[in-house]
Amino acid sequence: MMMNGAMVTLVGVAVSQVRYSTTQGGVPVAHFRLAATERRFDRPRQVWVEGDTSFFTVWAWRSLAENALTSIGCGDPVLVTGRMRIREWDRTDGRPKGVAAEIEAMALGHDLVRGTTIFHRTVRGRP
Amino acid sequence: MMMNGAMVTLVGVAVSQVRYSTTQGGVPVAHFRLAATERRFDRPRQVWVEGDTSFFTVWAWRSLAENALTSIGCGDPVLVTGRMRIREWDRTDGRPKGVAAEIEAMALGHDLVRGTTIFHRTVRGRP
Amino acid sequence: MMMNGAMVTLVGVAVSQVRYSTTQGGVPVAHFRLAATERRFDRPRQVWVEGDTSFFTVWAWRSLAENALTSIGCGDPVLVTGRMRIREWDRTDGRPKGVAAEIEAMALGHDLVRGTTIFHRTVRGRP
Amino acid sequence: MMMNGAMVTLVGVAVSQVRYSTTQGGVPVAHFRLAATERRFDRPRQVWVEGDTSFFTVWAWRSLAENALTSIGCGDPVLVTGRMRIREWDRTDGRPKGVAAEIEAMALGHDLVRGTTIFHRTVRGRP
Repeated sequence: MMMNGAMVTLVGVAVSQVRYSTTQGGVPVAHFRLAATERRFDRPRQVWVEGDTSFFTVWAWRSLAENALTSIGCGDPVLVTGRMRIREWDRTDGRPKGVAAEIEAMALGHDLVRGTTIFHRTVRGRP
Repeated sequence: MMMNGAMVTLVGVAVSQVRYSTTQGGVPVAHFRLAATERRFDRPRQVWVEGDTSFFTVWAWRSLAENALTSIGCGDPVLVTGRMRIREWDRTDGRPKGVAAEIEAMALGHDLVRGTTIFHRTVRGRP
Repeated sequence: MMMNGAMVTLVGVAVSQVRYSTTQGGVPVAHFRLAATERRFDRPRQVWVEGDTSFFTVWAWRSLAENALTSIGCGDPVLVTGRMRIREWDRTDGRPKGVAAEIEAMALGHDLVRGTTIFHRTVRGRP
Repeated sequence: MMMNGAMVTLVGVAVSQVRYSTTQGGVPVAHFRLAATERRFDRPRQVWVEGDTSFFTVWAWRSLAENALTSIGCGDPVLVTGRMRIREWDRTDGRPKGVAAEIEAMALGHDLVRGTTIFHRTVRGRP
């Protein structure tokens, strides 16, 4: 058996709105930017301090794309688990290649550490 | 550097209500049962099938305990990430020790694969 | 898209020898017990302390079963990533059901935090 | 409680040698490049196919740096678990910023799916 890519779980904040579209085949797809900030314990000062912030693009498909569009606003605290990919892309303006860290979300939701949610089921069948 | 226990991310369904209390020191704590069902691709039949279901007890503390109590109902689809512990416990009725799989949640939320959420922030400061 | 069970990564110590066999169909399978101990920072005392130890059964198949048998001894530090399952089983002696936490390993190796390894490739093709 | 950054586990191949140095304070540090290739099931063709390859820089400290230097060669199959960071860096030649995905390894080893290892303990005390 072989690992299917790099599984990752991120806890952070949506720092863009959700952008939604459909593929040529009609499949819903959405994405947004997520910022995840490290926290570590500063032993000399005896306090938790914030470390570096990393930025990711989170992609969602089908019902998850539709529900993310409806539910997630810029600034909301979220957690997401999925497959990560480091993608290189060509710039259209002739500058050197860029690199982006992307997550294909398998599950995604508001983080209840920061607030409460009212849930409304949209997908039938077993959860 | 050393790994601090077993980090795990689960996607499943709450199969109990959230039970809430406070410690003697006044710290909010809550727990509920979570069922996570495997899905795997059955190659001969060319379909996704459900595999075994595993059960976990999810523990939350402080604001996460309070917000979980308010937000999560029995049957809701959730995702949770945290530290896992396999705990042995003595039964009061003289039967042999039991074993339970427990998750201390670091982040927790409704899974948007199954529905939408309306979020209400309760914790101030940067997310 | 749906999460295929609970993915977990464990860092710990093999606390049994590797037991190896083959299925009726001739597929190699091996398992061993793994102990994973939490470490957390004790703020008042300013030191890292060890917390609870959890025990898991790690299962490996095919080449991973064969190579684990050859490579891993009782007491070796290992890391493993795979799918976790909480399994209930009937005892043969009439006592109540037991519960075991099992990992189906996707990758597995000696942890270089604790020592060095000499690697010998047995599987051809791209890694 | 808060998540300390993005925990990730990668299974892949070392695609550079291990570079080793010490900090000004005398702390050993090492890094190497790791390539992780997705595998997914192609349903129409009924075969597993390889998907995109992502590249990461893996960092190790102290005994893990020393033992990685001794143990890991370019081309070796490895698994690593640790904290991920997406780091932006300035180029010295005036070109736009680059972005790199870095893993600070907490545990690291040869993947026994691909071969066998002989382990030699270098760190005393309980594992």
